[in-house]
Amino acid sequence: MPLPFHPADGDPVPAALRGFARAHADLVELHEKPAHLVARHRDPGRRVGLVSGGGSGHEPLHAGFLGRGMLDAVAPGKVFASPHNKQVLEASRQAAGPGGVIHVVKNYTGDRINFGIAAERLRLEGIEVRRVLVDDDLATESDETATGRRGTGATVVVEKLLGAAADTGLGIDELADLGARFAAASRSLAVASCAQTSMHTGLPSFQLEADELEYGVGIHGERAQKTIPRPSTEDLIDRMLDEIVAGLPAGPDEVVAVVNGMGGTTPLELYGLHDLVLDGLARRGLAVSGTLVGTLVPALDMAGFSLTLTRMQQSWQEWWAAPAITPAFPRTAKETAR
Amino acid sequence: MPLPFHPADGDPVPAALRGFARAHADLVELHEKPAHLVARHRDPGRRVGLVSGGGSGHEPLHAGFLGRGMLDAVAPGKVFASPHNKQVLEASRQAAGPGGVIHVVKNYTGDRINFGIAAERLRLEGIEVRRVLVDDDLATESDETATGRRGTGATVVVEKLLGAAADTGLGIDELADLGARFAAASRSLAVASCAQTSMHTGLPSFQLEADELEYGVGIHGERAQKTIPRPSTEDLIDRMLDEIVAGLPAGPDEVVAVVNGMGGTTPLELYGLHDLVLDGLARRGLAVSGTLVGTLVPALDMAGFSLTLTRMQQSWQEWWAAPAITPAFPRTAKETAR
Repeated sequence: MPLPFHPADGDPVPAALRGFARAHADLVELHEKPAHLVARHRDPGRRVGLVSGGGSGHEPLHAGFLGRGMLDAVAPGKVFASPHNKQVLEASRQAAGPGGVIHVVKNYTGDRINFGIAAERLRLEGIEVRRVLVDDDLATESDETATGRRGTGATVVVEKLLGAAADTGLGIDELADLGARFAAASRSLAVASCAQTSMHTGLPSFQLEADELEYGVGIHGERAQKTIPRPSTEDLIDRMLDEIVAGLPAGPDEVVAVVNGMGGTTPLELYGLHDLVLDGLARRGLAVSGTLVGTLVPALDMAGFSLTLTRMQQSWQEWWAAPAITPAFPRTAKETAR
Repeated sequence: MPLPFHPADGDPVPAALRGFARAHADLVELHEKPAHLVARHRDPGRRVGLVSGGGSGHEPLHAGFLGRGMLDAVAPGKVFASPHNKQVLEASRQAAGPGGVIHVVKNYTGDRINFGIAAERLRLEGIEVRRVLVDDDLATESDETATGRRGTGATVVVEKLLGAAADTGLGIDELADLGARFAAASRSLAVASCAQTSMHTGLPSFQLEADELEYGVGIHGERAQKTIPRPSTEDLIDRMLDEIVAGLPAGPDEVVAVVNGMGGTTPLELYGLHDLVLDGLARRGLAVSGTLVGTLVPALDMAGFSLTLTRMQQSWQEWWAAPAITPAFPRTAKETAR
């Protein structure tokens, strides 16, 4: 039993893609064989196409961010597994126009390889491709390995900013450079109080005692390097903010913050954490351009949360504020003010 | 340990209210002592005020539905506990205009009593009050008790339709009558594969084996009358649809459907369920005016879902399609078409 309410054949992804496309038929369109989703309102003649994708189990990432102001097409893999390069290829063909296409890729080996193969094929077809690699997870920062930091919660920030920037008609190289800067300005940390349900056993993927916390957990149930005694929530937020702020590159004292649920964590907790995060940022002298609170980049039903900070340049503010008309990105204040 | 990421004082509600109001400051405003939230864009001179409320732990219900096209003010109680009548009173004073105020109340004894006391006081102040009682939960339908069916997932449907109807300038009696008709046209059933975390012990509130399902569960962790062997997801949806359709009053063969997560259930599962529900409705000859899929009326972090069907009159369709500019109600197709 992979998940409590799985289809009879055990693979939740095809049914979920169908159900998602039927729920949001005004915004997205599902193509099968190979599976990819495209935004209905894309405009490849007017802007560089934006394509993302990756393993499933992190919904609403990425398909929930299809639409005006964000992504044009996505390639969803099986749960916690990279999409096939043919999915990326088809998604990219749908998204690309004369200006080419940008791949937003979370830093995992499988994703890098499959997006890379698709990119080679696209270039053979005469389509320009650039990659924006998201690698925000501080828990995997190490001088000892060459793989670099994992891509996690900052993906939604990069996709938001890059989508709005693409809408202004910037060229592919400018956008690729900007995307790299958005990612470089972002760092995240995640904790879990309970592992997600294993797709193989139906039980938690790893065991924690009630007074323990997995500190620096990944979004695929990778255990952290550290299992720590559970601190008070106030102390936990202070520690995470200290480490994230120390990990950010130098720049303006202004940030976007994401309080992201890992799946099984309640809005009661996430909004309470948001209150602590805003106080903690103010004490550190950091202005806040905006925040997101919600289950945006989860690991199935893991109980836990991640914090992401992105150090914001003045010129990025309008891209953050621009509306993103997608199934899952919240209305921005600019939109509600209409 | 009430919840994994609770504040040091153990009560998650005040911090969550602050964090919520700070996350959605463009849409809502928090008043403390007694705690209530009001929509920024309310217009009591132009429409009858709409107030709801109830125990916390069901977020985004109700505060997530504050804003244009839905609610004007809400009174959030402690977790799974009715708000104090003073909270309802203050919320109602903020929402009421010359046309009066309507209370949308889920059918629980505590909520009925506290909204009732507030209504009496409002009437003493010369404010007209009507009540719309939501009582959709088929699992609690019984000739043996006088309390009637519980109010659960249909609340979001009633609040959506009534909000749009109020925007058209209808009078308080017409709206109260409509609200009663929306509620009467709605039935729900909920199941759980794992209980929510107890606020007292930090452990699941009741125990289920891996192959069991709680059939007809409530939104406060009330156990169901039946614990059943877990059927296939396909058979489960068929059984639930059969019972809900049989429970609906006679009327047009057109429905709104809500696939609601109980807290810990993934979007992968909810969208897969949505696909099965749409197929099941089509097989039963029911047209679909619209659907909602997501965690809208949960019971903290319970793993499970509820299905709600509302039999739609032709004249209600435009109210369903009208935009609701709130923190949590999805964009409607009418809105995205702009």
